[in-house]
Amino acid sequence: MKTSLSISELQQLFVDELTKESAIIEKTEPVNLYEPIAYTLNMGGKRLRPVMVLMGCQTFGGDTKGAIPAALAVEIFHNFTLLHDDIMDHADIRRNQPAVHKKYNENVAILSGDAMSIMAYQYLTKTKTPYIQELVQLFSQTAMEVCEGQQYDMDFEDTFNVSIDDYLKMIRLKTAVLIACSLKMGAILANASSKDAEHIYNFGINLGISFQLQDDWLDVFADEEKFGKKIGGDIVANKKTFLLLKALELATPSQKKELTGWIEKKEFNPKEKITAVKQIYIDLKLSEISKIKMEEFYQKAMKELALVDLAEDKKETIYGLAKMIMKREH
Amino acid sequence: MKTSLSISELQQLFVDELTKESAIIEKTEPVNLYEPIAYTLNMGGKRLRPVMVLMGCQTFGGDTKGAIPAALAVEIFHNFTLLHDDIMDHADIRRNQPAVHKKYNENVAILSGDAMSIMAYQYLTKTKTPYIQELVQLFSQTAMEVCEGQQYDMDFEDTFNVSIDDYLKMIRLKTAVLIACSLKMGAILANASSKDAEHIYNFGINLGISFQLQDDWLDVFADEEKFGKKIGGDIVANKKTFLLLKALELATPSQKKELTGWIEKKEFNPKEKITAVKQIYIDLKLSEISKIKMEEFYQKAMKELALVDLAEDKKETIYGLAKMIMKREH
Repeated sequence: MKTSLSISELQQLFVDELTKESAIIEKTEPVNLYEPIAYTLNMGGKRLRPVMVLMGCQTFGGDTKGAIPAALAVEIFHNFTLLHDDIMDHADIRRNQPAVHKKYNENVAILSGDAMSIMAYQYLTKTKTPYIQELVQLFSQTAMEVCEGQQYDMDFEDTFNVSIDDYLKMIRLKTAVLIACSLKMGAILANASSKDAEHIYNFGINLGISFQLQDDWLDVFADEEKFGKKIGGDIVANKKTFLLLKALELATPSQKKELTGWIEKKEFNPKEKITAVKQIYIDLKLSEISKIKMEEFYQKAMKELALVDLAEDKKETIYGLAKMIMKREH
Repeated sequence: MKTSLSISELQQLFVDELTKESAIIEKTEPVNLYEPIAYTLNMGGKRLRPVMVLMGCQTFGGDTKGAIPAALAVEIFHNFTLLHDDIMDHADIRRNQPAVHKKYNENVAILSGDAMSIMAYQYLTKTKTPYIQELVQLFSQTAMEVCEGQQYDMDFEDTFNVSIDDYLKMIRLKTAVLIACSLKMGAILANASSKDAEHIYNFGINLGISFQLQDDWLDVFADEEKFGKKIGGDIVANKKTFLLLKALELATPSQKKELTGWIEKKEFNPKEKITAVKQIYIDLKLSEISKIKMEEFYQKAMKELALVDLAEDKKETIYGLAKMIMKREH
């Protein structure tokens, strides 16, 4: 009988493979194209998405090793989106290191990103499977949706006319679909039924939305020391998060006036702005409201997982992952 | 018996399909992502690469209509590379229209380009064929090589240590592989033998190199009126073309001094520089030398085409295309 790998074992399996691959990539010519790719891939991170590919495959009894090229594809694609997003957002630091467009330059960041996007397909099509067309179609549709999500996110910067539904649609595209796709690719590779593949996909969508809502929450309500990064970044940047949009919806006229005052202010003390806006959020009970929303999507995810036609003990690693990523702080 | 379509009929067939698709793309949401894609696809151009896909397919007796998704993939990918190259090269005009990063902005150009690259795969995987894995692998490898070519081209900007062999390698990657890939994809779709697919690929490589050498030549020696654009752009920009590299190789010490003088000069009258550098090229007989090189690769291409195991009359449209693109001026 096959022994099932734990989350950290899957992580280790993936990181070992990624390390091997990026050592090869780093030495490939032209160096100015490939070295920044290796730099990006070596920046670290939780490697959640590739672990989900492997886990999806393992859960349905597939050969985990055979899913490694697909896992690499997903991680390389994800890192490509971060790389290009950092150019677009003028974000100069990524995981405490200079972003590629800062360490090298913008042209390098554009072209290396382009190459990473293609490289993702190169890994994906190394996969030995009769379902290659389905896999590439799923991956492409997901990748396109991620671009759409990024576009909506940028569109939101210029308007206040953003509903909670718009917001949920945006994070579904920008964050949740890649998580869902990762799990489903694993399931497809393990020859899961199309019903089960759909349930695991929907599990991923709902978990991903919950995860992003948590991310918004953490930016405001996290314990700075435990969280390991400064809080309030979204507030300073007027980012249209669930919290801000819900606040604009629920605020009394005077709260709304104060809130929009802070949003429109060009010159301000960041600490002061964070404290004031956070106080409005607290007065509006947004921490609780946001947690209820998180929980709603988390429970939807759990329902989808329950519908997967497997013995519950087979699903343990996936339950474990869901708990792990949703229990970072609150 | 099937009637074979002429070059212009294939062009028309493709343009009709592209027009239909881009009308759909233009209306897709988010508009800020998709409209610039439609704008790019509607900019025009000779549509050489997609015609080559269709022609490759037709030549080997395949169903030309079935090759349309692959033809769209190639054209969308090619336009994506132009879009991102224009950002990197700060080229503000493309086909007499503002480049995407000028008409919209740089973020739009980055993200729309990213989406086009993915869209190319979406079209490609619509193809109904048992060879989908081979097709996607060929396309990905080609796309990666195009990125490598662009990187070498940018690397060359910062060095004079570029040999003619380096240059030929660069244009093979940047220009020739996509032409070769287009023809080979058509051949694969028509179920050509792998030997024939290889010959048609090599035909494309050599034709592509010849084509690029001609492009360099036209920039200096073309009749401005017939050519329809200003000559001397490469000279003004110190672009490391075959002509400049060969000139640096063959120049007498005094010619070399004059040439490097012009290259290093920051302030100059463009007309004066073009006239002076062109005179050096003429004195070094570079028009003739360059034509000999073009002819060398053209003949290599013809040899590969002759090796394709088909009756010569089946190859007529391909011969016609080769003649057409290599007879623009000189």
